[in-house]
Amino acid sequence: MRALTTPADGGTEVGPTTVPEPEPRPDQAVVEVRAVSVNRGDLSLLGMLPPGSRLGFDVAGTVVRAAADGSGPPVGSRVAGVAERDGWSERVALSTTRLAALPDGVEWTDAAAVPVAGLTALYALRHAGSLLGRRVLVTGASGGVGRIAVQLARAAGAEVAAWAGSAERLKGLAELGAAEASTYDAGPGATRPVQVLVDSVGGEVFRSAYQLVERGGTVVCYGNTTRADLCLPFDWGHARPGVRIQYIHLFDEMPRRPVGNDLGVLLRLVAKGELDPQVAFVGDWTDPRPALRGVGERQVNGKAVLVF
Amino acid sequence: MRALTTPADGGTEVGPTTVPEPEPRPDQAVVEVRAVSVNRGDLSLLGMLPPGSRLGFDVAGTVVRAAADGSGPPVGSRVAGVAERDGWSERVALSTTRLAALPDGVEWTDAAAVPVAGLTALYALRHAGSLLGRRVLVTGASGGVGRIAVQLARAAGAEVAAWAGSAERLKGLAELGAAEASTYDAGPGATRPVQVLVDSVGGEVFRSAYQLVERGGTVVCYGNTTRADLCLPFDWGHARPGVRIQYIHLFDEMPRRPVGNDLGVLLRLVAKGELDPQVAFVGDWTDPRPALRGVGERQVNGKAVLVF
Repeated sequence: MRALTTPADGGTEVGPTTVPEPEPRPDQAVVEVRAVSVNRGDLSLLGMLPPGSRLGFDVAGTVVRAAADGSGPPVGSRVAGVAERDGWSERVALSTTRLAALPDGVEWTDAAAVPVAGLTALYALRHAGSLLGRRVLVTGASGGVGRIAVQLARAAGAEVAAWAGSAERLKGLAELGAAEASTYDAGPGATRPVQVLVDSVGGEVFRSAYQLVERGGTVVCYGNTTRADLCLPFDWGHARPGVRIQYIHLFDEMPRRPVGNDLGVLLRLVAKGELDPQVAFVGDWTDPRPALRGVGERQVNGKAVLVF
Repeated sequence: MRALTTPADGGTEVGPTTVPEPEPRPDQAVVEVRAVSVNRGDLSLLGMLPPGSRLGFDVAGTVVRAAADGSGPPVGSRVAGVAERDGWSERVALSTTRLAALPDGVEWTDAAAVPVAGLTALYALRHAGSLLGRRVLVTGASGGVGRIAVQLARAAGAEVAAWAGSAERLKGLAELGAAEASTYDAGPGATRPVQVLVDSVGGEVFRSAYQLVERGGTVVCYGNTTRADLCLPFDWGHARPGVRIQYIHLFDEMPRRPVGNDLGVLLRLVAKGELDPQVAFVGDWTDPRPALRGVGERQVNGKAVLVF
């Protein structure tokens, strides 16, 4: 079968290569892949992996071989799941604890866009506790995780403020449930104080957003796309006693979370029309370069998906 | 009666003045004060209060009038408690929810040293969760809160590393249970990694100590004596996923805590010889200047107490 890999010659262009068929463990189902999605984390890995490395976490497809241990869905089931960095391929073995059945009506492209971005947003918000009646500021709100976080926070009863890098990037966020939307250069004065901040940008944007966090507030960071130091003013704590700043990473969260169940929750929200994964780019899997470039250069206002 | 106040003429020297007798609310007992202690927080307030302001939170003494609502201990009971910034006085009304009976054998000076410093250390450590078998680094370990935090962390099953500003300030910390003790200028290389960091120093000391925090670690800050910005390297979170940084302030914690019960826990540890409040300076209450100066200039390796 074929799969996307980093070039065997050490170059930079990811492309299809012939690889062995998956050899599933007893707890894994083999899935015929119909769509995958590209995350910023995939791009971060590109430069760090040896030549010829497999890639990809987000997968949607059809079970062609059920797990030998009897867990998970039967052959023919439509599923989405989190692969073990080998998902961008024609077939993949997925742990049955890290996949969920697709409800009728959920398209392959939407399904493939959900796992990593949706679980990251879900777990980030869960660390903030109850959101009912609280104000939540999401920075990086125009990205794949950000657009889902805005919707999930709204669905949890929060009033959501969304920040993004430009007016162009803010498009559609009001329709997703953001009560306020603002560009970074508008600064903290343009947004009312919040009890929860969800940040993935870091640097000046984080420092600016942090000024809006009230006493006892919760800050959840799931990235630092600016790769800037964390710098907050001297009264970062004294001015807001009880404040909590937490950094989460999906692959650190997953071992202690019911990933398959949580993914099922997200996919059912998609089926009910309450969560739009915001697929903003769809390309053919055999040429992933436009998708990778679009995500890397932040030209995709949402998720980039490759279809098989 | 007399009490310590800021000068009526706007000067800087705190001294005894004639003030009205306390008028207790129904939930307050009146206590004849035998000893009080000085905290750094008292000093921070000095410059901010109007002339003639009352002072003082830490109090130990004898109940001379029980609370009208029937709560709390009877007349004649020896107690310690947290006053409402009017504790440095011959008599004070204390809420019965913020005082605890003194076990036999606990001296007035030790009792007066416990409330604010002990509760701050206790609540800081409680935010870190279970300490059993975990490594805890306490910065500012030579101060009033620090010396108690070292002992409480040890009592909770932690292996404790203590940092202070000089070899002189480190004296006695090994006897209190610190497995490692190090000066700030020794840097992070002198201490093994930790799962919990308790900091009150901020600035470069905090940045240095933070390098030792492992993935999933907990950082609890209860002060920033250097008044420096919070600055951490760009991978502050990515290099330790799950890390949590929390700022607590005792007067923010108290409304949601069983303060009297918790104070009782601490005083019973003192009675059992498992907690030494480290009274390092005792003076007469009518001249508080040496105590205030000693705490302000960090010349007191522990707690400063005034006796009545």
